[in-house]
Amino acid sequence: MRVELVTIGNELLLGFTVDTNGAEIARALSAVGVEVVRRTAAPDRAEEIAAAVADGLRRTGAVLTTGGLGPTRDDVSKKAVAELYGVPLEFDEVVWSDIVSRFARAQRAPAAANRSQAEVPRGATVLRNKWGTAPGLWLDGELGLTIMLPGVPPEMRKLLELEVLPRLAARASGSVVRSLVVRTTAIPESTLAERMGEIEREIAPLTVAYLPGTEGVDLRATAWGMGPGEADRRLRAAADLLRERAGEHVYGEGDADLAAVVLEHARRAGLSLGSAESCTGGLVGGRLTDVPGSSDVFAGGVICYSNRLKAELLGVPPDLLAEHGAVSEAAARAMAEGARTRMGVDVAVSVTGIAGPGGGTPEKPVGTVWFAVASPGATETRRIVFLGSRREIRDRAAQTALFLVLRRLPA
Amino acid sequence: MRVELVTIGNELLLGFTVDTNGAEIARALSAVGVEVVRRTAAPDRAEEIAAAVADGLRRTGAVLTTGGLGPTRDDVSKKAVAELYGVPLEFDEVVWSDIVSRFARAQRAPAAANRSQAEVPRGATVLRNKWGTAPGLWLDGELGLTIMLPGVPPEMRKLLELEVLPRLAARASGSVVRSLVVRTTAIPESTLAERMGEIEREIAPLTVAYLPGTEGVDLRATAWGMGPGEADRRLRAAADLLRERAGEHVYGEGDADLAAVVLEHARRAGLSLGSAESCTGGLVGGRLTDVPGSSDVFAGGVICYSNRLKAELLGVPPDLLAEHGAVSEAAARAMAEGARTRMGVDVAVSVTGIAGPGGGTPEKPVGTVWFAVASPGATETRRIVFLGSRREIRDRAAQTALFLVLRRLPA
Repeated sequence: MRVELVTIGNELLLGFTVDTNGAEIARALSAVGVEVVRRTAAPDRAEEIAAAVADGLRRTGAVLTTGGLGPTRDDVSKKAVAELYGVPLEFDEVVWSDIVSRFARAQRAPAAANRSQAEVPRGATVLRNKWGTAPGLWLDGELGLTIMLPGVPPEMRKLLELEVLPRLAARASGSVVRSLVVRTTAIPESTLAERMGEIEREIAPLTVAYLPGTEGVDLRATAWGMGPGEADRRLRAAADLLRERAGEHVYGEGDADLAAVVLEHARRAGLSLGSAESCTGGLVGGRLTDVPGSSDVFAGGVICYSNRLKAELLGVPPDLLAEHGAVSEAAARAMAEGARTRMGVDVAVSVTGIAGPGGGTPEKPVGTVWFAVASPGATETRRIVFLGSRREIRDRAAQTALFLVLRRLPA
Repeated sequence: MRVELVTIGNELLLGFTVDTNGAEIARALSAVGVEVVRRTAAPDRAEEIAAAVADGLRRTGAVLTTGGLGPTRDDVSKKAVAELYGVPLEFDEVVWSDIVSRFARAQRAPAAANRSQAEVPRGATVLRNKWGTAPGLWLDGELGLTIMLPGVPPEMRKLLELEVLPRLAARASGSVVRSLVVRTTAIPESTLAERMGEIEREIAPLTVAYLPGTEGVDLRATAWGMGPGEADRRLRAAADLLRERAGEHVYGEGDADLAAVVLEHARRAGLSLGSAESCTGGLVGGRLTDVPGSSDVFAGGVICYSNRLKAELLGVPPDLLAEHGAVSEAAARAMAEGARTRMGVDVAVSVTGIAGPGGGTPEKPVGTVWFAVASPGATETRRIVFLGSRREIRDRAAQTALFLVLRRLPA
């Protein structure tokens, strides 16, 4: 089965908004064997939307749109598609009651503008949206199949997964394109490539891509156009090889989150965690608490951005800070040990560094970060010089702090 | 002047990677009057890349590519374009010395794989990359102009801004497409739309778009195809009208960051800030410390995820927590006042809530968050029920905490 995507919004054409939906939908459709043959971005004008959808229907018989279903006046997709199919828009009581109860949950009342969101092209199946106010639509007619999803990413995602993919998978069949990601961190891309050796030859016809980001380098193996069973078997073998070569720098597969891996290891070992952050200013705590259920392992942390708070909240001796500086092995060690004692946790990690853009010196350039992990019996320290912007240095430092904790936890 | 974009990478076609570069480049080019007439995504195969670039050159005479310049074997763009232009790749000593010194700054040595990054098509102007190892290239020949940029976003961005835009702006002329964003927060999209009234008619021919996100709703006014002077004048008038209608919910324009606005207001008033976070787990601290120079205002914070730490680090009475619960007005108030006293700051903000997905009750559903802002003379509290995923609830709560602090600071 072949489908075209039409993503709607002036912002996409002018680049004001990034087309995350197009990418996410392409990936999800490929995985169930539906081929995306073209991606088009259309502006918020009814005639342009109708033309893009009509072109797509002519070529493939199936179009999936996102965007243009909101309550504001620049949202015109539904009207455009209804006119293309030659059907009127009709007020739908079920959709309206979904909208009213959604607002009630937030203890508010819908605005008049929301009423237009309850209008549905005659003959369309409503894909009920429990995560927002714009319903999805499934319009199957003489012209072909048009699926309309809201542009708000979490709503699009839920409707795609729960309502659209099962229906499309039932229509599609045959070969698939599947991928498997092995996630690594704390190793540069070029060093990782050297470890990989002749991997491209060894895993062919699968391919491998190196995807560097602030969390590390992801290795993505892809199986192209084969049956799902063969694809999964070959991907598993390729991933095992990638894991073996990347060694201790691997922390998971797929969309594994290092913070979740750390929490899981600590939970299994019965160890509680705490943090003491200076240059990352809460990012380590933010990463850990982003994981549902983190509270049984992560007790909390201290953001000791000023030297005064390093002393007051963690008991770091002011003399030590005066002698070695706040960005030093001694300070990192004292912060981690202080956090461990003051918070009464088993393992505490500290981060202190120079995130820039100012504050660097020849001995301690911007990007210099000291880490310490205090755990029962010992405190380990590590110094790394990160490259990049302030944000990249901070994100990489938070990821590295989590990696250093992971290496101190029982496997 | 007209240009085509070719973004390179299998990931883009299959949707494994989101094409942020394409959007960013389209925006930057529009702003200097260069029209992007087509966007194509090409896979990591030399013949496909060459075909996409050749097609683009034939239609417009100018192509800008991103991606495929890294050290790994899936990076083949440069070779493909050199062959298309019929020129060899030559080792460039200046580029190599840039690469070597970049690695030296991180106290490492380049890998053998990095040598290929110093190869340059004969006749190309090197756009020196101080932020990564892959140089940009400007290849102007009989076939037309091909500009090649690395795919790593921060590197692409810097080269685009410093090397490419000035050169292109010199070639282009005439009308531009420009936008101006007014940023609002803590007001739903539909309520904001009601406040706006007949804004579309009033600011025509400019358009306005509502762009909701976890930080709030951005209002983007756009002037299409007029001279830069007129565009800027009309945008200023439109933005003033948007600001007037949105009222107290406006916190800035463009890419204004609420955390930076808060820090600026506090700095002017000579007030220091601190935070006490439960459900946001460090996100408020993370937002504030993401701003360079935040340390003179933001002293630090406490991530008191467990009730024990709420008591030990902030002095919240255990009885109070037992009676009212950790998610309560009393707890929020005690946290903010405790943080203010313990940290010795002028203004402290607290956040305690239920981010979900578990932990909700009929009286306190998932998304319920209590805030308190303790400042000289008074403590104000606020309860909001946020909708969305755990991540959205946390991000929105962090943004709201910053908004509540801003409203307590002198204007």
